[in-house]
Amino acid sequence: MPPHRTQAPIEVVIVGAGPIGQGVAAAVARRRGLVLAAVVDVDPAKVGTQVAGVSVRRELPPPADEPRVAVLTTTSSLAKLESQVLDCLDRGMAVVSTCEELAWPWGAPEPARRIDEAARHAGRAVLGTGVNPGFVMDALPLALTAPCLRVDAVRVERVQDAASRRLPFQDKVGVGREPTEVQAALDAQRVGHVGLRESAALVATTLGLVTDAFVETRRVVVADAAIERAGRRVERGQALGVEQLGRATRAGQVMVELVFRATFGEAQSYDRVLIEGEPRLDVRIEGGVPGDVATCAIVANAVPVVAAAPGGLHTMADLPLIVGAAAPG
Amino acid sequence: MPPHRTQAPIEVVIVGAGPIGQGVAAAVARRRGLVLAAVVDVDPAKVGTQVAGVSVRRELPPPADEPRVAVLTTTSSLAKLESQVLDCLDRGMAVVSTCEELAWPWGAPEPARRIDEAARHAGRAVLGTGVNPGFVMDALPLALTAPCLRVDAVRVERVQDAASRRLPFQDKVGVGREPTEVQAALDAQRVGHVGLRESAALVATTLGLVTDAFVETRRVVVADAAIERAGRRVERGQALGVEQLGRATRAGQVMVELVFRATFGEAQSYDRVLIEGEPRLDVRIEGGVPGDVATCAIVANAVPVVAAAPGGLHTMADLPLIVGAAAPG
Repeated sequence: MPPHRTQAPIEVVIVGAGPIGQGVAAAVARRRGLVLAAVVDVDPAKVGTQVAGVSVRRELPPPADEPRVAVLTTTSSLAKLESQVLDCLDRGMAVVSTCEELAWPWGAPEPARRIDEAARHAGRAVLGTGVNPGFVMDALPLALTAPCLRVDAVRVERVQDAASRRLPFQDKVGVGREPTEVQAALDAQRVGHVGLRESAALVATTLGLVTDAFVETRRVVVADAAIERAGRRVERGQALGVEQLGRATRAGQVMVELVFRATFGEAQSYDRVLIEGEPRLDVRIEGGVPGDVATCAIVANAVPVVAAAPGGLHTMADLPLIVGAAAPG
Repeated sequence: MPPHRTQAPIEVVIVGAGPIGQGVAAAVARRRGLVLAAVVDVDPAKVGTQVAGVSVRRELPPPADEPRVAVLTTTSSLAKLESQVLDCLDRGMAVVSTCEELAWPWGAPEPARRIDEAARHAGRAVLGTGVNPGFVMDALPLALTAPCLRVDAVRVERVQDAASRRLPFQDKVGVGREPTEVQAALDAQRVGHVGLRESAALVATTLGLVTDAFVETRRVVVADAAIERAGRRVERGQALGVEQLGRATRAGQVMVELVFRATFGEAQSYDRVLIEGEPRLDVRIEGGVPGDVATCAIVANAVPVVAAAPGGLHTMADLPLIVGAAAPG
């Protein structure tokens, strides 16, 4: 393979003009090798507005001569995503989506099988990714096992200070609300992180760690004293945030353990990956990988790889390395 | 792509029965999905000895019906490796090699082009890898750029306490010798780390960081007081080890900076990757990735990926993720 491959820029169609869709559009517009071709949203309030210099349209654009990649940022539910993916494949587009359930779609085998078949038939690749699931708790720990003679277990901790994040993130983890109310929302997966199950399944399956159970526990972290940060005050007894623990086990033994903790005033933000095996590896990212920026970046960075991949439904574990890029020019 | 792919085990032929070849043979014999088919060495003293339960033979085995992967652990020089790679391709084998110059072979375009052509013709993949070059200073920092909107520069530090490593490693970095003698050997690349140039080129090219110069400085670290560790004593004025700094620059600005330091009694062993960009990522592996074990592991772990890859000369940047595996059974 020669060292420099010159390629025509890849056209990208963003579907879903919410905050993540807008962020991906901006990332695509700036990234070397990509061109923002269209932004699509069904919301009449968004149609006609400008996103990264492109006017939002209501419908997918007609099939183009150039191969295109669609980025779907519309839903966390694979059941809801399926028809959107099939529409894109019908128009000859490969697909990258931030839908959490698509990161490891085989937990819902029927939609996964139908998408896989349609993607193979269309000769286009489909991938679910994002910062998490997609990177911190799956692609990154998997990449870190390359130098291991044997992997016995994987543990990932993602700990974030919600006070340093924007308000929608603080809302997403229940900051300042009534703890019982947050616990109910957390149990119903209306707040908190979605994707521990998908990350655990992707890691375990890829490494051949056989598991027979997955249990996720979710709890609200409550302020035992009033705390003030960045102009916001949380009172004693209010929710500071959430802690979620996902464990994939075999006969009670932990094979994959994933900890997500995001609280207002958390002492330190960091990501940590522990590979138990030969050798044992202990890897720490000080400050952690910032969530929203990273999701937009990883989706944009996935586009060239997905555009070139064979037809079918992929995961982060079976595609070539997804990498960032220097600024153009 | 379905979640579980059952595959016949891949047969591996090890060429070169030195310490790394023996280590890879042991790793292959233990790894899920691989079978050690043969070990080859031209040294008459090694022929007939047992390596990982296999008797060392002098010649490559005849072509087999099953696709095989050859692991070449014979030389650091691409010029010397070329005919060995071509012999393996002729016999229908894909190739993984620890040859440092093969990790980024395009610094020697003619042998690289010939190997690439032969590999495409044979429909078999060829890859150079190892812990470094191959992982710590190239595949790992590249994997860490996935969540970046923009990459401006990459810095990697690999700092090792030679006192905790086996004697051949201590010899490789000149521990206890006369500093002027070690400096001469270091300048001639008979001691120290080989591969900073290859890692820098792989990182810069993959990320599109344009560079116009690469300079490597190598210096001996000298004991300013006697030091005793693990039953060995190094006197004041003797060499403690080496420090090498590789810098790929554009108009004097550092794009990729790689630091390799290995000294007797170094306070802390660690690897650190710094991605300068948006966001900035600071990643630390406490204790560092252990060298010899990791090279043997990464080569064995590369075999399934290389066996399935399209024909041609690849790098770590264009193959699917190389991952470890759970113990068999």
